[in-house]
Amino acid sequence: MTAYEDLARRFARIDAVNGALEMLHWDLSTQMPKGGQPDRADQLATLTVISHELMSERTLADQLAAAEVAQDLDDWQVANVREMRHRWRHATAVPADLVEASIRAGSACEAFWRTARHANDFKGLAPLLGEVFHLAQARAQAKAAALGTSLYDAMLDQYEPGGSSARIDVLFNDLAGFLPGLLEEVLAKQAAEPPVLAADGPFPIEQQRALGVRIMGVLGFDFDHGRLDVSAHPFCGGTQNDVRITTRYYEDDFVKSLMGVVHETGHALYERGRPAAWRGQPVGQARSMGMHESQSLLMEMQACRSPQFLEFAAPLIREAFGKSGPAYTAENLYRRYTRVERGLIRVDADEVTYPCHVILRYNLEKAILSGDLRIHDLPGAWSEGMQKLLGVTPPSDKDGCMQDIHWMDGTFGYFPTYTLGALTAAQLFDAATRADTDILPGIARGDFKPLLAWLRPNVHSLGCRYETDELISRATGRSLDAGVFKAHLRRRYLGQ
Amino acid sequence: MTAYEDLARRFARIDAVNGALEMLHWDLSTQMPKGGQPDRADQLATLTVISHELMSERTLADQLAAAEVAQDLDDWQVANVREMRHRWRHATAVPADLVEASIRAGSACEAFWRTARHANDFKGLAPLLGEVFHLAQARAQAKAAALGTSLYDAMLDQYEPGGSSARIDVLFNDLAGFLPGLLEEVLAKQAAEPPVLAADGPFPIEQQRALGVRIMGVLGFDFDHGRLDVSAHPFCGGTQNDVRITTRYYEDDFVKSLMGVVHETGHALYERGRPAAWRGQPVGQARSMGMHESQSLLMEMQACRSPQFLEFAAPLIREAFGKSGPAYTAENLYRRYTRVERGLIRVDADEVTYPCHVILRYNLEKAILSGDLRIHDLPGAWSEGMQKLLGVTPPSDKDGCMQDIHWMDGTFGYFPTYTLGALTAAQLFDAATRADTDILPGIARGDFKPLLAWLRPNVHSLGCRYETDELISRATGRSLDAGVFKAHLRRRYLGQ
Repeated sequence: MTAYEDLARRFARIDAVNGALEMLHWDLSTQMPKGGQPDRADQLATLTVISHELMSERTLADQLAAAEVAQDLDDWQVANVREMRHRWRHATAVPADLVEASIRAGSACEAFWRTARHANDFKGLAPLLGEVFHLAQARAQAKAAALGTSLYDAMLDQYEPGGSSARIDVLFNDLAGFLPGLLEEVLAKQAAEPPVLAADGPFPIEQQRALGVRIMGVLGFDFDHGRLDVSAHPFCGGTQNDVRITTRYYEDDFVKSLMGVVHETGHALYERGRPAAWRGQPVGQARSMGMHESQSLLMEMQACRSPQFLEFAAPLIREAFGKSGPAYTAENLYRRYTRVERGLIRVDADEVTYPCHVILRYNLEKAILSGDLRIHDLPGAWSEGMQKLLGVTPPSDKDGCMQDIHWMDGTFGYFPTYTLGALTAAQLFDAATRADTDILPGIARGDFKPLLAWLRPNVHSLGCRYETDELISRATGRSLDAGVFKAHLRRRYLGQ
Repeated sequence: MTAYEDLARRFARIDAVNGALEMLHWDLSTQMPKGGQPDRADQLATLTVISHELMSERTLADQLAAAEVAQDLDDWQVANVREMRHRWRHATAVPADLVEASIRAGSACEAFWRTARHANDFKGLAPLLGEVFHLAQARAQAKAAALGTSLYDAMLDQYEPGGSSARIDVLFNDLAGFLPGLLEEVLAKQAAEPPVLAADGPFPIEQQRALGVRIMGVLGFDFDHGRLDVSAHPFCGGTQNDVRITTRYYEDDFVKSLMGVVHETGHALYERGRPAAWRGQPVGQARSMGMHESQSLLMEMQACRSPQFLEFAAPLIREAFGKSGPAYTAENLYRRYTRVERGLIRVDADEVTYPCHVILRYNLEKAILSGDLRIHDLPGAWSEGMQKLLGVTPPSDKDGCMQDIHWMDGTFGYFPTYTLGALTAAQLFDAATRADTDILPGIARGDFKPLLAWLRPNVHSLGCRYETDELISRATGRSLDAGVFKAHLRRRYLGQ
């Protein structure tokens, strides 16, 4: 067996353990009775450690070094070895005791936060969160040393391989200079228009589910290789041949859950479209978190919050709930799905304001990792940033710096991927609709095959064959910038 | 860390991997879309190999030897080491290549059987099944050498630790001499009585499910630590804190699914009652397959196919389906649930004839392992045994020696545990109802607390603290025999 073959076998094994972990997480979120918690915690901890041990075997490192100088590998295999090295670096860069201390501190902080948030108790949270920050800095230092990058870029690289804050600064500064002014204009325009008509519920969950399943089918979701279930926090999980998405239903309105299902279906289509020949191998995985978010946002924001899609979907919505009248026209539904507001909460934000929430967090987490922002200065820095970017000031920390789970469990470097995804979605969708002018008419008639026929060869089936920048350049003709996204917002929200 | 502490840590880890496997099997049977098969196969194979590797580590064997001579262990810890040794022996007795060849041959035979059975193609099956028999003999030889037992007892010991064919021969000969005559008498008695009234369906699945859930609650099933789902073949799976049972609904009648739910609830109560302090350790597991079956059959056959239970359940059944009339009286339901027939199919058999099916298979699999019965003589030997024990001859192999999955995948030594379970259930229930005379009146009023209050300390919470024979002796005052079971059948079916 060659070094490469041995590595492929090892990584397939690691992938199978990780696939089992995926299913156990899905079950935890959708099926497990609450009393199953101790057994599940043991299973998750044990398999996580085993996965890490398999990656940390001394012989794996030796084989990796050998495969990197092998002369007989094809382009995909070379890319596979590159991705193996990337995973290996992150898995082995941080000493085991620091990993364990981080997990413990993150769990303790997250558990406290779940009640402290409602009580608006930042003072009680601060010591725990400060410890999480401190350990994140230590991990960033270890990773930066192993990767030869800055502290922030080392953390970012976990989610966005090859990403850099230098590039992100350019993109985000562009947006930060553009969005506040745009927001003023959009709000003024919307205020001058007649009010949007609300839906008159209730909308029974079974009907919402049936509509969601129907729309998933239209988008190309394959129910022989996936499921739709319910969880408190919607996600896309499972494995390539068994993609499991979730949603959460609100009986008083259907719009949120329906577009949530569309969003997760975008993730699912990416998962299903990954290169089947490279199943279980690093090169067969999704390119990055930003690229994954681009696929969900391409479906949700670009394809389905469009006049074309809502023209198609309006009759299905009326039929699903037995409704009629002006609140259920395609035009009113489009206006509902493109409503813009200055809000305090990121997860409730619309397409225009969402990047402002992300830019705030990105700037703050850079300052936290570098040591420039201390825990007790966080609420003030948060308020200041919100006022500057969104023109609102949170009345309390629970609607301010305590709203997200991410930092509580020690996740740093993840936030920018949301907005990288939004920019990438716009640039990809623009390239797709230029390359095939039947994509938009297809969406209007409920035919997503043309869109998928472009996404499959240009994004999904490439897995990690190319690095992110090259993938985007090949698909769209240039590196990622904010231009198409900005033009998209002006067109959709100002009619320009 | 002492040798014992190290072993406890290792076995907890193995238990967590096995728990993950349990959940993946449950998901495969109840949730997984069919296209998920390749990913799931990889996950199951990988975790199975990892579990086996953890057990086969050289250092584990060393620690086991050290723990067996340790002087500072309490009784539970000594029993734990004994059970560790038992698992270790079975896991390491068979060479890896023979294990792998057996799995491959079993998979091939089972896959062929799934269609060959319907086509009644024994001739086509014979070469594949012959290979499975051959490899089972080889495994039995390896295990017999490691355990110092006969071939059959080595296979039996996997499911019934410490069990022996010498003991089973005595029990089964007793039954074989008793049941054919009893069957004649019961059939004559039933023929002389007015006909049993059938139910008039359909019985909607949602109503059947609601009734099943209600009865599970009555029996003591804790839905904070378990679920009821649907699968093609009902089973009880999951882990101690997360027990998952399944059933299968038939819309034309409710009796089968309802009593199936009761049966699996019996298994579930045993799982939940295992000693919590020994979670994850071998001594904390269920005692044996026969003991497990005793808990399902105690609930189903002893407690719930009784006049007392059906007196309680009849009004619930009428209410669940909105039914009334003579078919739904407690008396008619009791007669339906105790109907006896000469049948060809084991899984459809009643309490009186079931042991005959088991005795036939037990005798045949002993002869197969010893080499006394060759594959081509199996159909003839089957017919002969059926005629002798049950007075019927199968018109075809699909209703004869091709009906069960067990031998197809290489499972030998399992069949007797069904009837050991039936005998044990009768002897335990008799002891329980003598020890607490409120148990039967409790069942009649839908109060299973008295029964559970006896089962918990006498069976469930003991785990593997005692070997099977000692557990039964402590609980009932003597070793297992067929006396109580025979008396139970005479009383229930002949009124003697």
